[in-house]
Amino acid sequence: MHAKFITTIQMDSKKPLILISNDDGYNSNGIKSLVKVARTLGDVFVVAPAVHQSGMSSAITFVTPVRTTLIAQEEGYTAYMATGTPADCAKLALSQLMADRLPDVMLAGINHGYNSGLNTLYSGTMACVFEGILHGVPSVAFSFGNYSADADTSVCEPIVEHVTKRVLERGLPQDVCLNVNIPYIDGAFKGMKVTTGDMGRWVNEWEHRVDPKGRDYYWLTGDFEIADKDQGLSDFYWLQRGYVTVTPTHVDQTDFASMAAISDLLL
Amino acid sequence: MHAKFITTIQMDSKKPLILISNDDGYNSNGIKSLVKVARTLGDVFVVAPAVHQSGMSSAITFVTPVRTTLIAQEEGYTAYMATGTPADCAKLALSQLMADRLPDVMLAGINHGYNSGLNTLYSGTMACVFEGILHGVPSVAFSFGNYSADADTSVCEPIVEHVTKRVLERGLPQDVCLNVNIPYIDGAFKGMKVTTGDMGRWVNEWEHRVDPKGRDYYWLTGDFEIADKDQGLSDFYWLQRGYVTVTPTHVDQTDFASMAAISDLLL
Repeated sequence: MHAKFITTIQMDSKKPLILISNDDGYNSNGIKSLVKVARTLGDVFVVAPAVHQSGMSSAITFVTPVRTTLIAQEEGYTAYMATGTPADCAKLALSQLMADRLPDVMLAGINHGYNSGLNTLYSGTMACVFEGILHGVPSVAFSFGNYSADADTSVCEPIVEHVTKRVLERGLPQDVCLNVNIPYIDGAFKGMKVTTGDMGRWVNEWEHRVDPKGRDYYWLTGDFEIADKDQGLSDFYWLQRGYVTVTPTHVDQTDFASMAAISDLLL
Repeated sequence: MHAKFITTIQMDSKKPLILISNDDGYNSNGIKSLVKVARTLGDVFVVAPAVHQSGMSSAITFVTPVRTTLIAQEEGYTAYMATGTPADCAKLALSQLMADRLPDVMLAGINHGYNSGLNTLYSGTMACVFEGILHGVPSVAFSFGNYSADADTSVCEPIVEHVTKRVLERGLPQDVCLNVNIPYIDGAFKGMKVTTGDMGRWVNEWEHRVDPKGRDYYWLTGDFEIADKDQGLSDFYWLQRGYVTVTPTHVDQTDFASMAAISDLLL
């Protein structure tokens, strides 16, 4: 099913073209690390949100128009910020701004905070790479276990370089992107594991408060309970043990396994 | 893998409890149809967005707090509107407002417009039922092929009744929700099919315009190209032929099939 690898790179004709987006905004430390590494590997094109867009999932904007602002243009490097969501930014890049030449690879992140397991569902960073593969571009999301806005993401750069080089050289299976999570630990990473996404669950999701006027309001918060259903295969399991994790991820959520049972239930 | 059906219904002790949400807002025609049918089947609890939230995917709100307003409370029927996204509404219901008794089934919709195939990715209606199954509740999303705000969704009500009754009676496979799409056609539906999600693609995604001050802006729009990779199995294929489609859907997007290839690529 995944035997056919896709790669659009044309190494002989010109440098690789690398698209970068994120959900933390064009000015975050994480995206600066991606740009720094990518510029050593090829020409770089950035389209990133003007403001922080964490937790936006694959939200798209069609009630208001989207605007772009060119923020950098020099030899081998072009950057736009856009008013929309992470998915909007990726769609703008892939369907409009780069219409003349699709990128050879798309990178997203480095997210300030994990996008492992169930959190893929809510992630704007993953939304970027989903758009990448939907447009036929090999795509990799990077997320770092430090949630701070001033996180030093330079520790992730060797990982970004390794993965991006391999993907540029050999492509990725069709319709599959990579969800790379990097632990925030003292000392060196223990290694790299290819993992499943941990479909644990969020508990204690809301904190109920009362405002000065006596009215209720709720903050979304919570604690993540790891499932590790596969016993030592999941991303959270290995992140906790100091490993960089790579979860191959696709868009399609059809549950093929239950089609017969649902036919029996409804037809 | 899906042999264990879950159902939380306690038919002997009390009426079924049915949670309803949507992404078109608490006052849309579609949710009124769901409430109408559900009230004939059990007690109904609504938590729905205050305003239209189409295309919000599984976006969640944590930069601002979420507020709720009780808009109806009578025998067998309680309804709140909330300031957040569809996923926020579902989480508020399942983790906070219904903490004493989880619903026996969750319904979302009826969406004004299809959520078939790839559009599942962007759908706030699907976000609701994803929260449902993440909280262990059998969950069904309904979407109708009429995109108009004043769509007459009453034609969908017999479908809602049939599916909801069966799910209340027999539950659903664990971790699987149903994505039901209902065609907008003259005359009777041709039948019902259990389908795959059509992972086609959007083309012509942006319309570029120039504002009165001479500045660029972009409207998200586009045309959907059906893939029907499985040749006559996909939801779009059967919707075009006048059938109601039911796509069993799960949250996990791990691409298990490519794990070995990715290990070979990176490790």
